[in-house]
Formats: sequence, structure tokens, C-alpha cells
Amino acid sequence: MTETAPATRTPAALAALVPVLRDICGEDGVLTDASRRRTYESDGLTHHRSVPGVVVLPTTAEQVAAVVRLCSDRGVPFVPRGAGTGLSAGALPHAEGVLVVTSRMRRIIEIDVDNECAVVEPGVANLDVTRAAAPHGYYYAPDPSSQQVCSVGGNVAENSGGAHCLKYGFTVNHVRGLDIVTPSGELVSLGGRSPDAPGYDLIGAFVGSEGTLGIATRITVNLTRAPQKTVTLLSAFTSMDAGGRAVSSVIAAGVLPSAMEMMDALAIEAAEKAVACDYPQGAAAVLVVELDGPAAEVDAQLAEVVRLCGEAGSFETRTASGPEERARIWKGRKSAFAAVGRISPAYIVQDGVVPRTALPEVLRRITELSESSGIRVANVFHAGDGNLHPLVLFDDTEPGAADRAEEVSGAILDLCIEHGGSITGEHGVGVDKACKMPRMYGPDDLATFDLFRRSFDPDGIANPDKLLPTPRLCGERPGVRRGVHPLVESGRADQF
Amino acid sequence: MTETAPATRTPAALAALVPVLRDICGEDGVLTDASRRRTYESDGLTHHRSVPGVVVLPTTAEQVAAVVRLCSDRGVPFVPRGAGTGLSAGALPHAEGVLVVTSRMRRIIEIDVDNECAVVEPGVANLDVTRAAAPHGYYYAPDPSSQQVCSVGGNVAENSGGAHCLKYGFTVNHVRGLDIVTPSGELVSLGGRSPDAPGYDLIGAFVGSEGTLGIATRITVNLTRAPQKTVTLLSAFTSMDAGGRAVSSVIAAGVLPSAMEMMDALAIEAAEKAVACDYPQGAAAVLVVELDGPAAEVDAQLAEVVRLCGEAGSFETRTASGPEERARIWKGRKSAFAAVGRISPAYIVQDGVVPRTALPEVLRRITELSESSGIRVANVFHAGDGNLHPLVLFDDTEPGAADRAEEVSGAILDLCIEHGGSITGEHGVGVDKACKMPRMYGPDDLATFDLFRRSFDPDGIANPDKLLPTPRLCGERPGVRRGVHPLVESGRADQF
Repeated sequence: MTETAPATRTPAALAALVPVLRDICGEDGVLTDASRRRTYESDGLTHHRSVPGVVVLPTTAEQVAAVVRLCSDRGVPFVPRGAGTGLSAGALPHAEGVLVVTSRMRRIIEIDVDNECAVVEPGVANLDVTRAAAPHGYYYAPDPSSQQVCSVGGNVAENSGGAHCLKYGFTVNHVRGLDIVTPSGELVSLGGRSPDAPGYDLIGAFVGSEGTLGIATRITVNLTRAPQKTVTLLSAFTSMDAGGRAVSSVIAAGVLPSAMEMMDALAIEAAEKAVACDYPQGAAAVLVVELDGPAAEVDAQLAEVVRLCGEAGSFETRTASGPEERARIWKGRKSAFAAVGRISPAYIVQDGVVPRTALPEVLRRITELSESSGIRVANVFHAGDGNLHPLVLFDDTEPGAADRAEEVSGAILDLCIEHGGSITGEHGVGVDKACKMPRMYGPDDLATFDLFRRSFDPDGIANPDKLLPTPRLCGERPGVRRGVHPLVESGRADQF
Repeated sequence: MTETAPATRTPAALAALVPVLRDICGEDGVLTDASRRRTYESDGLTHHRSVPGVVVLPTTAEQVAAVVRLCSDRGVPFVPRGAGTGLSAGALPHAEGVLVVTSRMRRIIEIDVDNECAVVEPGVANLDVTRAAAPHGYYYAPDPSSQQVCSVGGNVAENSGGAHCLKYGFTVNHVRGLDIVTPSGELVSLGGRSPDAPGYDLIGAFVGSEGTLGIATRITVNLTRAPQKTVTLLSAFTSMDAGGRAVSSVIAAGVLPSAMEMMDALAIEAAEKAVACDYPQGAAAVLVVELDGPAAEVDAQLAEVVRLCGEAGSFETRTASGPEERARIWKGRKSAFAAVGRISPAYIVQDGVVPRTALPEVLRRITELSESSGIRVANVFHAGDGNLHPLVLFDDTEPGAADRAEEVSGAILDLCIEHGGSITGEHGVGVDKACKMPRMYGPDDLATFDLFRRSFDPDGIANPDKLLPTPRLCGERPGVRRGVHPLVESGRADQF
């Protein structure tokens, strides 16, 4: 847990910068008042807190560049922040640094239908890109559950996914060009509207770099043609194994659903209590499958998926093609995270990945872990791409329960690594998992990452202490980490 | 043009390394004999030549690492080489350096059908991955025209595309994991079998880095499900404009063909003379469109493409779904490069990209250029993704003709840049276009590339003088460059 004493004054080292920052961003573009700064003290992972030294709200790329150049000249750290919905404390402010918030850079600069792309500023909300493209029959494919509020710039920093990344990929697969401000304050262009620009493809490396390589100030994203038809299917099974068999056989048949989500009995129970989603009674697992594409293809694939679910042992399958019926099926899945609050006073949301083939084995091991520790674990996950989101339930009023839950949560990550997977699927590393990176990567791998980072940021001022392990932080209290899901408190959990 | 005096002896500085290299790679893994070294003096772009100081043929990643570590310790440059089919002199040897040839690393380590990937050594031929996957109903999607011989490691270095990258993307979209030897001789793993590994996505940056960041020693690539149905269509038009309209309307209708290739009258004439492909008489443009996917989808889309071609003014459309009929349609297109040799003593193949919407305008400007200069230009290109391959024809026995052709070829690249495109679509930068990079990128952009390169290679020993401009080479004879297509001489031009 990271927490600094609430700052009441802007630190002295920063105070000298404030007049210059005001020259750059204007009077209302610089926040020094303690109570206003405190509103930025965390991102979506609220148990990591730190009040930023100064907050700036630039409106142009030139302002961002000037702010960062100033930080670089004075050796002051800066932290970029979009909408603050991240779940790995990647936007945790620095108490002695400048928090650069992109929320005033919200222009959609261009919707270029002919070249199937949009050019936007980093503060634009993810869903607003789709809203602007929809009249032309297009949408922006990456759909993190926070898409109503999260920013495209934040999505770039975290390489955000969503329920549909099984078919459509992550943010990195949809970014065609970037203007970035490097940690030395230079404005640099990467990529463009044409595919495969010559030189190093630093777009791939920048996307998902969690603010450690600079700040994106203009983003060119692919627009995807809205599918002719979309069908959602709910299939119920009497065991997780049977559900897992259905997943495998759908993929093996060459069908690529746009989404394939799974919930276990505990998650279903929670969803029923919260939103009365009316899923089939007696289900030990439900699978939500979405198919989209040309109508002829969707119809053919739907018939096949229904057949394969039946062969895998499904006792009931429902299909829906109208928007309202589809929303009814999604309701249970989307409410699952918040719903867990109905059956447990507190919980940790874990985020890990395993190769799809390892899913049945890892799920069995999670059940064993849960049984041996007496800690309940609900499973809601992107089955198609092996991205697990186990919800580790505990009672935070019971002494020691949080620590035991934390242990189970950590053990689940170990299972993921052991089976060739990774420590995060879509929430990122941030501060939260930086100390876990050595479990995935050897010293040479981490040294290569570090050399790369330093080629952009020799002085280590861009979002320090995030993404890569720093001995100062990781040496102290290894493994102590808490993750009561913040959206439960904030009421935003239905965005999942 | 790069050419060094034919070396008869291994340079003295290298001679001292030879015994150590033999310890690492074995007696038969080190070539010092001048005539054997000379066989490696160029890649597919044969007018750039340089005999390598020493050639090594390692068989394991550990041998590669040991060779590179030795180079790093002694400050000796090294150049990686796959099958040597590249077309930008990216594998041009260094006369004072070590050429590291991966041709003995040809093991297909694993075909993992469940996780839809293959693990291969860098020397494996592109098509051999597909051959190994085919019995399982899968194939390896990137299909450069040299796929029978080019290596997967070379494809990674060049981020190779192919006729089908319109739908399936470039090599970068199909590489899931890499083991690389960095320029300091460390063996590092990037990515893995799960999607979206945490940390920097250096796979994207490594793919297409043209050997400047090290050598890939093990490559995990996606396998793609073989489509249920494939249909090829040939549509003939009385003008390039009409063909261009058809391309635009197909894309606008939301149909994504796996390939969409166009040829103009001169290219058609050449193909007819060479292989009697029997394309419709009187065609000023032909469009070859390939559709693949579930049968239901392909049938629906085929009907739509035929209708749209008709609306755009096509006077004849043929469709083929059997392999032999499809091969007949492709025959003209595939032979076009070699065929141009029938109507011109010599030619330059250019490789540039424009945004798809700029295609009609750029093609008109190329026609104007051709008319005003009296230099004939045949156009054969990947219309769907705006990747042009103009063939600039000239008579190399006529004094000054080569220079005039070179001028036209360079002017075509300028047109691409002017219209927001780029200086290479799939052949890479290498030595050939390194001096043109400043036309696309500003000093800050190039400095960022250079910092990144140096973070891997501080001493500049990994494939020096490739990819980025070096004052020593670019200051001397700017713009002087010749590109008579080498495959015409070598008889390999039918691989296009």
C-alpha cells in the first residue's frame, strides 16, 4: 500500500515552478490548492494514494511539451493522467511532482471515413469516438468496461482491452499514429495513416508503456465497420469443466466469437441477487458468447456454436439478436463485479492470463486453493483469451482475513505464471504489480526494459516507480498489497 | 551504390577472432575462404555488394549469443542474414565484420494447435511453417512473394507483408513471442504464448528493426485457421480510374477481401507476352480480388463485389473457386514483375505507400511523370492497402537512361510522401533508402529512433549503416541509387 501524508502545501521545490506553469497553461490550468489537488490522489485503485505536488490541465500539445520540458530542465518528476479509471495505480501522483491531466484535451479532430480512422486528442472518452463514428456506420473497437468515462490517452497508456478483444484485439491493434511528448519535452510523431511506416515501430512499445515514455497528445485510431449482424447467446452448464469444453470446441471449430465470457456458480449467485438476471436455474457455469459479422456468417456460426455447446453438455441455450434481448443476457455478466458486494463485505479483483488450453487446470487449482484456505473465490472471465478475473471474497472486519485473501490472490497469480501466462491481462502493472515483474522476467529481460526506458527518459522523471520494479519499493514489504475493489465503494462497478 | 573491392583475405582485425569463432560454431560453421564468402556479398538487391569479413553459420541460440558477445567485446560489427531475399540491401555484409547466417537454424520446434501457434527457429522457410500446420487445418498468414525460400527470421527483421496483408496484416501482427540475442550478446525473451504481456511491447519494435536490435533465435508465430472457402475474381476495366472506383466501393461496402491487386495496361501487356494469361482484351486495368472465410460469408460477399465492379464500369468479371482456376487468374499478376523483362531491357521496382484514398490522384501524377519524362512506368500494386510497386522501364544500353529512370523512381517516392504515405511498403529501408528517411521524419523523430537503437546497441555494431541515415553515407552522393531488379537476372522473379 502506498500512502503519503496529505500535503497541505505545494512542496517548496515545486513552488518555484508554479509561475512558469501558469504562463504555460494559464491561471485556471494550474491547481495548487490542497483540496483540489487531493481529488486526484488516486486512480481507480483507491488504496494507493498520494496527493500530487501540482496539477496542470493543459489544452494543447505545445502546452504539454512546455510543461514536460520544464520538468526535464528542473529534474522534477511528472505523472500523466487521463480519466483516472485505471486499476493498477498507474496514474498514482507523485507528491513532489507535477500531475499532467489531459481532461481538457477532448477534441475529436477528424473522422476520416475514407481511410477508416479517427484523429483525437488524448482526453476524449473512449465511447465518444464510437459516438462520432456511428453515423458513418463505424465504431471504435476496443471497449474497456469503463468506456463511458475512460480516455483514449489512458487506453493507449494501458493498452486497454475489453470483452471484445478476443476477436478485435487490444488498443495496440487499433492505433495507427501517435504524436507524443517525450520525457525530454520533444514533440515526436510515430506512425501515420498508412500501414507499416519505416523505422522502428515505437507505437507498439509506446502503447502499454503506462506513461513512462511520455504523453500522447494526438492519437490516430482505426475505425471498424459496424457489423451487419450481432447475436448474443447464453449457454448453461452443470459444471465449469463442461463450459470449458464448449470454449475449446468453439475455438477448435474455427469460429472466432467477438466475445466469450464465463461465470461460475458463485458469480451467478451474486448476479442473481443483485440484478435478478434470470439465468437458467441450477447452472454451475454460464457462457456468454457474442458473434458478429456478415449476417450469412453469423447465422452459420450461431448454429454451430449452439450445436457445440449442446455436445459439451449444455442443458439450456438462449439466443438473442435484438438490442434489448442482448442487453438482458449481458446484464448478469456486466453486473457481476458490483454484485459480488451483495454476497461479501469486501473482495479483491485479480487480473491474470493463462494460455487458453491451461484454463481447465488453472480453474481446478483455484477451486482447490479456495477450499484449502476457506476463502471463497468467484470466477468471471474472458474465457476466449484466457484472461481471468477471480474475485477473492473476504470480510474486512475479521482480523487477518484481508491478509489471507491477499495470499490467495497472490497464489492465483503464481498459478498463472506457472502455466505460462502472465501477471496482468488488461489492468496493467502500475505501482500495484511492479514488484511482481521479476516473477515473469529474468534480470536480462528487465535490464533490456530498463535500457529502453532510459533511452526515452535518462533522468527517470516520467511516471517513476511504475511498471518496472525499483529496489527501494520492492525490497521493503514484498507481497503486501491490498485490492478491495474501489468501484464497489464508488458505485461505478456496473461499468465492468 | 555500395561496392567494396573484392576481399581476398579475411581482414587482419577479424583474423584474430577466427579461432574463437571456430570454437563456438565448429570448423564447418565458420567460412573464411574468399570465394565462399563472396557468395554472400549481396541480398536480393544485388547492385549493393560487399564481401563479408567472416561468415558464421551457428546452429543454436547459445552459439549466436556467444558470437555476438565476442563481437561486442571486440567492437566488431555484425550483420544478420536469413535467406538473403531482401530487396533493400538490409543484409548487405560488412567488409570488416561478421555475417551471422541463420540458415542452419531450421527446426520447427513445435506446432501447438490448441494455442494456435508455432515455435520455430529463424532459418525456417516461411512456407515450411504452413506446410507443417496444414495437416491440422492451419496456415501461417504472412505470405511474401518469396515465401518458398525466405526465412521467418528475415520476415521478422523486415516485417514482411504479402498479397494477403490487406486482411491479415504484416508479420508484426502474427508474432507472439521472440527470443532474441541483443547486440551485447544477451539472450532475452519478449512476449510469449499469452496475449498482451506486461512491460514494454518490444516485439513490435523488434519486428521490422532490420537486424539493428539483434538476432531473433526463436520465434512464436500465430497459426491461422485455413478458410472454409476461397474465391478469386478477375474484373476488367477500360480505365484505371474505373478500377480505382471499384476498389473504393468494395472497401466502403464493408467487404474486406484477403487480397485486392491491380495491374495497368502496360503490366497486362507484359504479362500477356510472357505467360499468355489470357486476361480480357482491351483492359486498361484489371483487378484481382480474393475473398476467403466461411462459405456463407464468401458467397454473399462475392455477389456484392461482382455487383460493385459492374457499377464501377467493369466490362468483364470472371470468378474461380477451384485451385487450378484460381491459379490461372493469379498467373498474370504473379508473373508481372518478371514479365516486364519482355518489354524492357531493364527496370527499377519501386516500393511506396499512399493512403488508399490518395491512390487515384497519385496514379494520375505517375502517368503525368511518365509522359513528361518519356520514361514508361508499369503499375502492379496492392490496391487494397495503397502499396504501390511502380516498375520504371529503361534501356540500360542507352547513355543517361538509368539516371532518368532513377529520377522518375525517386519522384514517385516524393509523390507518396507528399500524399501522406511512406517510402516503403514492404521491402524495408536497409541501405537502399536509409538516406531517404529524413524526407519522412523530422530531426526529433530520427533522434528518438537513434536513442532507441543505442539503448540496445550503444557501440553501433549491429547492422551499422542500415535503416537510419548516417551522414558519412548520405552526405556523399545523395539520390544516386540504381535498382535494376535483380530477380530478372536470377530468374527468381516469378516469386513475386
